[in-house]
Amino acid sequence: MITNPADANALIFKNRFLNHESFTSFFHSLLCVCVCVCVCLGSNYAMSNGGGGGGASSSTHLLDLLEEPIPGVGTYDDFHTIDWVREKCKDRERHRKINSKKKESAWEFTKSLYDAWSGWLVVTLTGLASALSLSLSHAAADWLNDLKEGVCLSAMWFNHEQCCWDSNETTFAERDKCPQWKTWAELILGSYIMNYFMFTFWALSFAFLAVSLVKVFAPYACGSGIPEIKTILSGFIIRGYLGKWTLMIKTITLVLAVASGLSLGKEGPLVHVACCCGNIFSYLFPKYSKNEAKKREVLSAASAAGVSVAFGAPIGGVLFSLEEVSYYFPLKTLWRSFFAALVAAFVLRSINPFGNSRLVLFYVEYHTPWYLFELFPFILLGVFGGLWGAFFIRANIAWCRRRKSTRFGKYPVLEVITVAAITAIVAFPNPYTRQNTSELIKELFTDCGPLESSQLCQYRSQMNGSQAYPAGSDAAATPGVYSAMWQLSLALIFKIIMTIFTFGLKVPSGLFIPSMAIGAIAGRIVGIAVEQLAYYHHDWFLFREWCEVGADCITPGLYAMVGAAACLGGVTRMTVSLVVIVFELTGGLEYIVPLMAAVMTSKWVGDAFGREGIYEAHIRLNGYPFLDAKEEFTHTTLAREVMRPRRNDLPLAVLTQDDMTLAELQNIISQTSCNGFPVIVSKESQRLVGFALRRDITIAIENARRKQEGIMLNSRVYFTQHAPTLPADSPRPLKLRSILDMSPFTVTDHTPMEIVVDIFRKLGLRQCLVTHNGRLLGIITKKDILRHMAQMANQDPESIMFN
Amino acid sequence: MITNPADANALIFKNRFLNHESFTSFFHSLLCVCVCVCVCLGSNYAMSNGGGGGGASSSTHLLDLLEEPIPGVGTYDDFHTIDWVREKCKDRERHRKINSKKKESAWEFTKSLYDAWSGWLVVTLTGLASALSLSLSHAAADWLNDLKEGVCLSAMWFNHEQCCWDSNETTFAERDKCPQWKTWAELILGSYIMNYFMFTFWALSFAFLAVSLVKVFAPYACGSGIPEIKTILSGFIIRGYLGKWTLMIKTITLVLAVASGLSLGKEGPLVHVACCCGNIFSYLFPKYSKNEAKKREVLSAASAAGVSVAFGAPIGGVLFSLEEVSYYFPLKTLWRSFFAALVAAFVLRSINPFGNSRLVLFYVEYHTPWYLFELFPFILLGVFGGLWGAFFIRANIAWCRRRKSTRFGKYPVLEVITVAAITAIVAFPNPYTRQNTSELIKELFTDCGPLESSQLCQYRSQMNGSQAYPAGSDAAATPGVYSAMWQLSLALIFKIIMTIFTFGLKVPSGLFIPSMAIGAIAGRIVGIAVEQLAYYHHDWFLFREWCEVGADCITPGLYAMVGAAACLGGVTRMTVSLVVIVFELTGGLEYIVPLMAAVMTSKWVGDAFGREGIYEAHIRLNGYPFLDAKEEFTHTTLAREVMRPRRNDLPLAVLTQDDMTLAELQNIISQTSCNGFPVIVSKESQRLVGFALRRDITIAIENARRKQEGIMLNSRVYFTQHAPTLPADSPRPLKLRSILDMSPFTVTDHTPMEIVVDIFRKLGLRQCLVTHNGRLLGIITKKDILRHMAQMANQDPESIMFN
Repeated sequence: MITNPADANALIFKNRFLNHESFTSFFHSLLCVCVCVCVCLGSNYAMSNGGGGGGASSSTHLLDLLEEPIPGVGTYDDFHTIDWVREKCKDRERHRKINSKKKESAWEFTKSLYDAWSGWLVVTLTGLASALSLSLSHAAADWLNDLKEGVCLSAMWFNHEQCCWDSNETTFAERDKCPQWKTWAELILGSYIMNYFMFTFWALSFAFLAVSLVKVFAPYACGSGIPEIKTILSGFIIRGYLGKWTLMIKTITLVLAVASGLSLGKEGPLVHVACCCGNIFSYLFPKYSKNEAKKREVLSAASAAGVSVAFGAPIGGVLFSLEEVSYYFPLKTLWRSFFAALVAAFVLRSINPFGNSRLVLFYVEYHTPWYLFELFPFILLGVFGGLWGAFFIRANIAWCRRRKSTRFGKYPVLEVITVAAITAIVAFPNPYTRQNTSELIKELFTDCGPLESSQLCQYRSQMNGSQAYPAGSDAAATPGVYSAMWQLSLALIFKIIMTIFTFGLKVPSGLFIPSMAIGAIAGRIVGIAVEQLAYYHHDWFLFREWCEVGADCITPGLYAMVGAAACLGGVTRMTVSLVVIVFELTGGLEYIVPLMAAVMTSKWVGDAFGREGIYEAHIRLNGYPFLDAKEEFTHTTLAREVMRPRRNDLPLAVLTQDDMTLAELQNIISQTSCNGFPVIVSKESQRLVGFALRRDITIAIENARRKQEGIMLNSRVYFTQHAPTLPADSPRPLKLRSILDMSPFTVTDHTPMEIVVDIFRKLGLRQCLVTHNGRLLGIITKKDILRHMAQMANQDPESIMFN
Repeated sequence: MITNPADANALIFKNRFLNHESFTSFFHSLLCVCVCVCVCLGSNYAMSNGGGGGGASSSTHLLDLLEEPIPGVGTYDDFHTIDWVREKCKDRERHRKINSKKKESAWEFTKSLYDAWSGWLVVTLTGLASALSLSLSHAAADWLNDLKEGVCLSAMWFNHEQCCWDSNETTFAERDKCPQWKTWAELILGSYIMNYFMFTFWALSFAFLAVSLVKVFAPYACGSGIPEIKTILSGFIIRGYLGKWTLMIKTITLVLAVASGLSLGKEGPLVHVACCCGNIFSYLFPKYSKNEAKKREVLSAASAAGVSVAFGAPIGGVLFSLEEVSYYFPLKTLWRSFFAALVAAFVLRSINPFGNSRLVLFYVEYHTPWYLFELFPFILLGVFGGLWGAFFIRANIAWCRRRKSTRFGKYPVLEVITVAAITAIVAFPNPYTRQNTSELIKELFTDCGPLESSQLCQYRSQMNGSQAYPAGSDAAATPGVYSAMWQLSLALIFKIIMTIFTFGLKVPSGLFIPSMAIGAIAGRIVGIAVEQLAYYHHDWFLFREWCEVGADCITPGLYAMVGAAACLGGVTRMTVSLVVIVFELTGGLEYIVPLMAAVMTSKWVGDAFGREGIYEAHIRLNGYPFLDAKEEFTHTTLAREVMRPRRNDLPLAVLTQDDMTLAELQNIISQTSCNGFPVIVSKESQRLVGFALRRDITIAIENARRKQEGIMLNSRVYFTQHAPTLPADSPRPLKLRSILDMSPFTVTDHTPMEIVVDIFRKLGLRQCLVTHNGRLLGIITKKDILRHMAQMANQDPESIMFN
């Protein structure tokens, strides 16, 4: 995670990003060929208009220079906040232009049609690419994961399952013991130690490769990416965070990180990968590449597609995008997100990477309903989830803070290797930690049926007391189940500890799967306990009504699912989207009440210890300027208490509309670090005229010096419509009206901060001017608000670093 | 539908509403008993605080009169727009008070807990009540509907199906011919004419009863209610629209209207009924009853619950609320709406009114996938849906406009009876129009299986060419199918014509079911056509791959479903929510692509003829001040072109902060009709201080006259903190600072209207002041914006009637 704009890695990366322009155009052409003629046409059109990056028109006529848009005005610096209102106005302007031109010629009409369709095209492409990257990464992770155990002699590139497809063994249990597949022990030395060694060796190699790739090629590829995506979607610029290098390196290292056995998942990073795809495809379309607000609509859709492929839950994906990551989510985006999520789901189903012709990673079907008394254990699981979430967030943030502030954070490779080594060494002896985490979750979710060979399903038959076999109805557990429960308990403790140290390492690391695994283990343990209780005490008043002998009244798999939802809810504080995602796993309304009960409980319990989810906590840790839409501002402060200048500060740097020279203006700019300056009528009246951005002023002055004759240091600068009357010998004045924002947002000094915060949130403002009885008093920026909020919450206001 | 605040019926109704105060408290007590001790506690607390209606605290101490809140300040007149910002501030203030008090005593702590939980309680109750009202109305409508055909001799209150439950006939086809059930012909005269007569007689009686009840008791109960609910949720006050009389009368007349056989459905009105429930329950909780913004959160949840019960689609209901009706939909409301929708769905399932142990009215299961070439007919159906929607909206609005503007609208009872008579007389001979519309839809959706006895499923067997029987695979249609298709075509024309004249009658009338029926008929016809085409030409290149002889490649029921979605989409222009609702009917992702293709096509085709859906069109027809969030404002006008005063108008009525007498103030108030007045420093400087609402000024003056000594006509009125220095003999001045809004929203005169519209939409403003260089220039109200938008769209700006 990037901690500071001056971070050396980030700079190196950015330079590399710029050096790869040739690669950029190659990539563009390649995509053009892939997609369709229509897209190609548009892409060329985009490039001829400078679709590469900056978004500025390069055509400059020498006449009427002042009416031409100045190149560069209206773009943003890296690590700055965008102005949503301005971006949306720009887009409407563009749309109007296209609309007015479209009747001129068939070509213009085609362009307008292409423009209208480009939104659908870009989300379709994003959905496609997300599904492809999931399938690829899933297949690669499977193969690498099995490589830790052994190798397929008939074909190296087969994983264990594919290797044994042609096996003659037809019984279910013997299926994965085929002659072509050799464990390392069978191949080399024939001992358990050899397997142990090879397992650790591969885990370390994968981890080392992953962290090295991230460190060298794309530092932005580490972590889950969701905190940064939330920040970007709220209107922040992090150049290269969603670039193609990040995409490539993240996809590769994600597979390596998962295969290395670290306690992490690939679902969160897949959202980042999908957003990278969305961002890259948006460069094909000038509508999106040149407008930061429109680009964020594509990213919202992309994140929906990401969750849709990660969990096979298209509606859940849309709700995730709506609830968790998106900031500005108009209905059009809802519809596009839904479309992207569906495209992704369908491509995924036709690729069928899970081999079960289901969209869903953990498809489960239960055969018994739940009973009212079970709500008690479900709520208990919710409490556990909430406690785990609160504990995890605190512990993980404390550890990440230590990593940031001490010498320790300087050795990311060493840290990853250490964690990977500990994980591999501790994990191997326990079958539940050795196996792939998503397979573990699947096993825990599954109900015991006659075909299930898992140790968790070894129940004693009622008819035939001695033999252990999977039971269809509630039955006495055999020692096999009890030993499995011991192993699960150890796995639970192991996962809890390792996840805290893993999330935040410099490798791609998702939190969904480890959280769900912890919840599923806890849930399954509780489920088996309740089941045995019901079996041995079926005459208790609680069980009497439903659990007579031979009935199948408790489903431990359901408990695992409820526990998984509760733990995920505790960590992320998602609500509706989480319930819908898990509901889409089972596909029945039946179990939605237990899920809701557990998720609500876990959210309430978690909120009692701190209202932030893990993503918000990481955003705060990194000091991003993120104004959370969920958090209510409840204090009674007024705008005048928050605005700058404060009581003992220097007066506000302002420009006057027509009586400053260029030298004075440059002086003000060089002496202050503000991002913009209010323009007033005169120093005496202090009445506000408009607002000019620092970046725009600098660009405009440079442009004027280059293009206009006679601009000198004592040239008068004016923001009015007509030049002020000047003495005859004065140099040519410089008109800067075109960069003046004539409609700055203002509030009075008496405005309660709760309203100001609301305005900033809903309109996506960057700054707002404060007036008293029509006179300019001060300015409030997003950073000021965030610092004020941090102060009110007794946190360090200096932790907010960007504007 | 109420066309004017001065509408006589509305006034009569409002008076009645006020006269029923005693009933109100009885109703409250009754509810208290019903619910639970906790709620009762809260309800008493609510009433002791004046929970009845106005929302004003009645406790007035004689000391420090000026610091006390003045009763009535902060409430709204009927048919006025609320100020969202002020309401939200009020709620935060209330929340802060409760929070600060809660540590004082156990009682205060309990109250704060109750306050925190009241949101969940009110949505639970709303969900419960919605499910109950659906079940009741469903049962009653079934019984009344069957009464048109005959009567159950063993028990009058049994409907046809219940009557024959005990029948000994076990074959499926003979099931509904049991001896206890007598048609009117069997009972009285024994002729077809008798059945015809009784059918028409009952239909007319039901229609007459429905329209009379609506006319006499609750004029607001007519129509679908969704346009008004959209307007109310956007922040408009229509007192009594969601009251208990509306609830009672609407529930009863809805049943009668459906049973009368008119071409209308009960799904739309059920959303209104659910909102009534939500509104009534919100009176139990001071948090919601006293705050118009909070109340609208409950109403959003209630509309989700309404759709959830109407279609058995909880997630679809939430998305409907989000996409179609809600205006302000924060995440908290999303979660509560989801909860309400689930509660409603679960209660419904336990009541099981449809008798199929499914939530869903039209549960369908198809056994064959769809093929790519079928997209072509699906898109055709989408085109049909779009055309139908555009045509329907134009025709219906034209008819409703004629009803409003001519003498014709004065006889609502006669109109209803005429339409009902025509409907009954034309409908009876055709079995597809005679039967209940929702049963028709169910039949059209259903795939032909061996158990299906419908005429639509009489295919020729391949093995045994002569006999007509329901086929599992594609087969040749018998003459039975062809005659069914003729009847369906006639039914289609009939439904199209009657629906245009029915929607807008003075009875509760929903549009979902008739639209879906039209689409389902068209879809089924297309489906059978494609099926026969595929059967007879199975060697065409299109069909060759999938439709070999004996394969079941075309599912006509699926076409009916796609057609229904397309037509509903064309009329309402819903997108995501519609797809999700229909997706929840089938419960499989399988058919979502055909649905999306059809719904998108229908929306695009419809939008080409006019972007308004039927609800927006009715809102415009009625002149409600509704600022649609979906419609983009694309013009380039500036704030100064929209603000008042216009060029030739009188100057803006303003108040000065400390140099007006009471007489001058009253003079200004009586001479203008503005709803509020800007307060400025002085006439010379025109610098803005704040804004005061007309209603608040009037109330404050009256209050001061009653409570304060020495207030005379020449008393000085001041809005400043300290009284101005006055001559010694002047009367006591009147301080009005407490009603001054010190933070009015301002924009500069150069602000583009697109930004102003955005601000109004997102912040829910009522008015906004316009300044130039710090000086007050004018004011823009919501009405001004709507009139400006109407003008830009070449519509009559005077059609916007309310403020």
